[in-house]
Amino acid sequence: MRYGFLGPETTFTHQALLQALAETPEEFAAEEPELVPFSSVATATTDLLAGDIDALMAPIENSVEGGVSGTLDVLAATDSITIVAEQTVQITFVLAAREVTPFEQITSVASHPHAQAQVQGWLRANTPNAQIAAASSTAGAARDLAAMSEDEAWGRAAVCSPLAAKHFGLTVLAEGIEDYDGAITRFVLVTREGRIPARTGTDKSTVVIQLPHNRSGALLEALEILGSNGVNMSRIESRPVGDFLGRYSFSIDLEGHIEDRRVAAALRSLHRLCPVVHYLGSYPRVDGTGSEIREDFSDDAYDQSREWVDQLTAMITPPAGA
Amino acid sequence: MRYGFLGPETTFTHQALLQALAETPEEFAAEEPELVPFSSVATATTDLLAGDIDALMAPIENSVEGGVSGTLDVLAATDSITIVAEQTVQITFVLAAREVTPFEQITSVASHPHAQAQVQGWLRANTPNAQIAAASSTAGAARDLAAMSEDEAWGRAAVCSPLAAKHFGLTVLAEGIEDYDGAITRFVLVTREGRIPARTGTDKSTVVIQLPHNRSGALLEALEILGSNGVNMSRIESRPVGDFLGRYSFSIDLEGHIEDRRVAAALRSLHRLCPVVHYLGSYPRVDGTGSEIREDFSDDAYDQSREWVDQLTAMITPPAGA
Amino acid sequence: MRYGFLGPETTFTHQALLQALAETPEEFAAEEPELVPFSSVATATTDLLAGDIDALMAPIENSVEGGVSGTLDVLAATDSITIVAEQTVQITFVLAAREVTPFEQITSVASHPHAQAQVQGWLRANTPNAQIAAASSTAGAARDLAAMSEDEAWGRAAVCSPLAAKHFGLTVLAEGIEDYDGAITRFVLVTREGRIPARTGTDKSTVVIQLPHNRSGALLEALEILGSNGVNMSRIESRPVGDFLGRYSFSIDLEGHIEDRRVAAALRSLHRLCPVVHYLGSYPRVDGTGSEIREDFSDDAYDQSREWVDQLTAMITPPAGA
Amino acid sequence: MRYGFLGPETTFTHQALLQALAETPEEFAAEEPELVPFSSVATATTDLLAGDIDALMAPIENSVEGGVSGTLDVLAATDSITIVAEQTVQITFVLAAREVTPFEQITSVASHPHAQAQVQGWLRANTPNAQIAAASSTAGAARDLAAMSEDEAWGRAAVCSPLAAKHFGLTVLAEGIEDYDGAITRFVLVTREGRIPARTGTDKSTVVIQLPHNRSGALLEALEILGSNGVNMSRIESRPVGDFLGRYSFSIDLEGHIEDRRVAAALRSLHRLCPVVHYLGSYPRVDGTGSEIREDFSDDAYDQSREWVDQLTAMITPPAGA
Repeated sequence: MRYGFLGPETTFTHQALLQALAETPEEFAAEEPELVPFSSVATATTDLLAGDIDALMAPIENSVEGGVSGTLDVLAATDSITIVAEQTVQITFVLAAREVTPFEQITSVASHPHAQAQVQGWLRANTPNAQIAAASSTAGAARDLAAMSEDEAWGRAAVCSPLAAKHFGLTVLAEGIEDYDGAITRFVLVTREGRIPARTGTDKSTVVIQLPHNRSGALLEALEILGSNGVNMSRIESRPVGDFLGRYSFSIDLEGHIEDRRVAAALRSLHRLCPVVHYLGSYPRVDGTGSEIREDFSDDAYDQSREWVDQLTAMITPPAGA
Repeated sequence: MRYGFLGPETTFTHQALLQALAETPEEFAAEEPELVPFSSVATATTDLLAGDIDALMAPIENSVEGGVSGTLDVLAATDSITIVAEQTVQITFVLAAREVTPFEQITSVASHPHAQAQVQGWLRANTPNAQIAAASSTAGAARDLAAMSEDEAWGRAAVCSPLAAKHFGLTVLAEGIEDYDGAITRFVLVTREGRIPARTGTDKSTVVIQLPHNRSGALLEALEILGSNGVNMSRIESRPVGDFLGRYSFSIDLEGHIEDRRVAAALRSLHRLCPVVHYLGSYPRVDGTGSEIREDFSDDAYDQSREWVDQLTAMITPPAGA
Repeated sequence: MRYGFLGPETTFTHQALLQALAETPEEFAAEEPELVPFSSVATATTDLLAGDIDALMAPIENSVEGGVSGTLDVLAATDSITIVAEQTVQITFVLAAREVTPFEQITSVASHPHAQAQVQGWLRANTPNAQIAAASSTAGAARDLAAMSEDEAWGRAAVCSPLAAKHFGLTVLAEGIEDYDGAITRFVLVTREGRIPARTGTDKSTVVIQLPHNRSGALLEALEILGSNGVNMSRIESRPVGDFLGRYSFSIDLEGHIEDRRVAAALRSLHRLCPVVHYLGSYPRVDGTGSEIREDFSDDAYDQSREWVDQLTAMITPPAGA
Repeated sequence: MRYGFLGPETTFTHQALLQALAETPEEFAAEEPELVPFSSVATATTDLLAGDIDALMAPIENSVEGGVSGTLDVLAATDSITIVAEQTVQITFVLAAREVTPFEQITSVASHPHAQAQVQGWLRANTPNAQIAAASSTAGAARDLAAMSEDEAWGRAAVCSPLAAKHFGLTVLAEGIEDYDGAITRFVLVTREGRIPARTGTDKSTVVIQLPHNRSGALLEALEILGSNGVNMSRIESRPVGDFLGRYSFSIDLEGHIEDRRVAAALRSLHRLCPVVHYLGSYPRVDGTGSEIREDFSDDAYDQSREWVDQLTAMITPPAGA
């Protein structure tokens, strides 16, 4: 099995893939998985479709490393790809150097601008003598530092992921240096050929819908469809369709699995309403929790209501001449 | 075939039954139908269930002769009865006497209080010398007048239906004497053993639903179910359930036939939501008109959405060990 | 002060009025209230409007004695009447006789048919030798029994309210003889000249609305107006408007007082939507309980949102030439 | 007056600003407006707030040059900025060279990758011998071509805006070379100090809302608020709030002006529902068209409903002791 991820090595996407492999060891028992970094979701998807890799981990929500819009657009544009798992990674940064260095002796800190924006308060307070140097990625900042001569490296530090510090053999000077706690990025593992994992009871489904043109209130109708089937959204994001102003598609995560009758019913109604519904998969929630389901949204309620109407329609009398 | 109706003879219900028989002659070709008056919907229903009559015409909406609540309650309480047709009758009254009489020589006008209330303006303006005499029914007023001696009948008139005047051989002095035009009563023809006529394309369905206790907003949810399936209501009436304050059932006429996918879908959802859904039948609309159906509420849209989800669920992969 | 009630004396309406007077003694301290029975809500309302009585107690929901539809229609048709209080009465019956009598020696039980329907199981089980005799009211059954000679009264009993048994000096042989517990009738106290009692925090408001003709989904819109202002309905009843088939008005009890911003906002929106909104009053809930109000439906939330928009509109710049 | 725009010169934003100035000449009669290019919306906004420029034109929707998300985020983050006008520009490209050149003799075509993506079909078909060269912007491609020596320029062409070709004195070889017609970008003109232009009757309002955390269905509630006040959305876009997964703000264009009662009412309700509502302005629609407004959403309907409730609340009687 070859697994692609949005690289370079030691990105948070890399970490998400390592987490996924660690959590489901039995799936990978037979052979050592091979991990392949890609520079963009688009190129990785091309390789996935071509069969060069078997699965791909990509950020889908709130990433500090970008790639999120790209992932959404690529997934929406491709027919035979499905999401089979999700992972979340706590976004946290370390200050790393080649060897133990007092903060006041640090004269240069390298990192990617996105990461820097998240640690600038900490840096100002703790490394007052440091110049900020931009790097193409946090992984690159760490790798470059590791590749320097010892002399050159003295006084230099990098803001990077814990994985990057470890991977490149750097010394961690401080952990959790982000100014605000709690940033999390969500990743999805996608495969080709439309496999849907069986439901676990705490699942999520992802769809991309395009609303009918020129119908005011169509988004409201779409949300009512979800509400009237007891299906919560855990995410909704708009993406411009690109042809006309005011035309958007919506990428939506639903609580539940397509095997859940309420999700299947909601999808059917969305299919009637929307000119385009792109189903991207149902997969276990990484947090393993689910909402309480109201009795009238249970599988039994759906099944019984179907039987009831089937019994009634059996009573229809064809016209005498028929 | 024996047909019951809410009597006595010459009521508007009687007229509705005659209309129904006249409009569908082929159904009654083989034998002369027998028409049986009943004093209440409840007793007629008992006879219908017992097999003593084959069908029953009863007022269901807005009658001047009462019986409407009774009809709704009886239909809601009985399982094996279905509505197979509807009729509407224009409620109009005539002033009838034994022979041609100048208005100013009329000294007494007999009628049922409900009818009198609808013609009192006309009577005041046109029969200034008349006393109003209450009768147990408009039919009774006409029959009594017909039974009098000629002398006794002089100066007397009755407010009654055109059918009653004709039936009892009275002379019509004035037609359409109601103060306000347009009153119409709707009647339904019910049979036992749950026959549902095939759809004609312009049909109506009747249900009685009871909402879940203690859920604020359940009526709103029920109406949203109809709206989100493109199903219009042509009538909604509340009826107290009778056990607790604030508990009502709702008797609802829907536009469409249970064979219409959108109606079947709405019924299924109502069945999930409501502790009680009583389906009373689908039958042709007497006015033969229907609303335009939006494309996403067509049978095709429902069928295609079902196929789409069925194809997707076929892709679910059972767990490895299963 | 003269208080009318739907009579005769000892009806449950009578009892509701006595309860109301007992609960608010300070209002009636100055003078002894005078209680006046009426045979119909319509005649009592005429007297109320004419000033012959000052207030009127009438059943509004689920009464065993009738009069409910009448009350709703009369209230909806009259402009200067408002509801200022409500009462509920537990509907319970006693078996009463002139003197203590063993059940098996009772040969005749008199009552009103509505009441009889509610105790028939108990009577069959406990008074096997009794004939059932219809009376015009439960009060009449008790009064007639009290007026008989002692001889004539032997072996006779009446099904009546506890109040009637006490009022006519009868002996209660058995209490709570109704087959099903829990029947409650709700009554309202109405006055003329549009007084609205100040809010108590646990109030109710009553309105009658007529929906726009020919707009499918108008009832849904009306309920959404309530929902989007956090206003629960504790009762909704349809009443035919009477001019055309399918036209209904809806009598609705709302949780909350017109002084509550959320209720005022809902009423304003209903006024826009509906050709007719008849406000019948706000008054304390007899059960003294209220629902939890979500923060965004609090008075503060409404007041702050108004101030916010007022501040914004103050920024509008008139056109240069104006 | 100094007007900023997202540069460099000859961008579509530049063109939008020129259009705006041309359409409202009276506003700029007194003095020649000065146009100032900026490299980002963020830096331009800083200058706007500092008073260095008076207004700023920025793309808000569907731009080929980027900057849209940036505009939305900057507007949402700043309090004293309001939108006072909008402009749309048809996105169209020309193939430009220094002098008339047969297509087959073109060996190199320079442009920005976004633009190139939109014309690649045309280029493949018409300039088979050309290499594609990336430039930092379409304006840059045109400027560079204009700056070359005549020899160097031979065989080279640029894909750029009509404005750029004209501005840099190039020869247009082909117009309208985009593969798909109809791409339009929308721009807004923003000023500081919260001026709101008076309503014209065909206006638009822009808000950014953040939904309450942990309330499933809050987006549905927000859309229902708009629907129940007859307010259409012409645009809705999600933007991650950035603190937690699944938290989005929504940038929304509403049809109507804050002076319209229905818009003011909708804003008030949104203010109650949402922890954050950022009002960005009301301004004339550039297309000058508006939707038909239902009678119950007219100013009159809102004003009359307010008066009605005010009259009712005047009838509230304070408690006796108050």
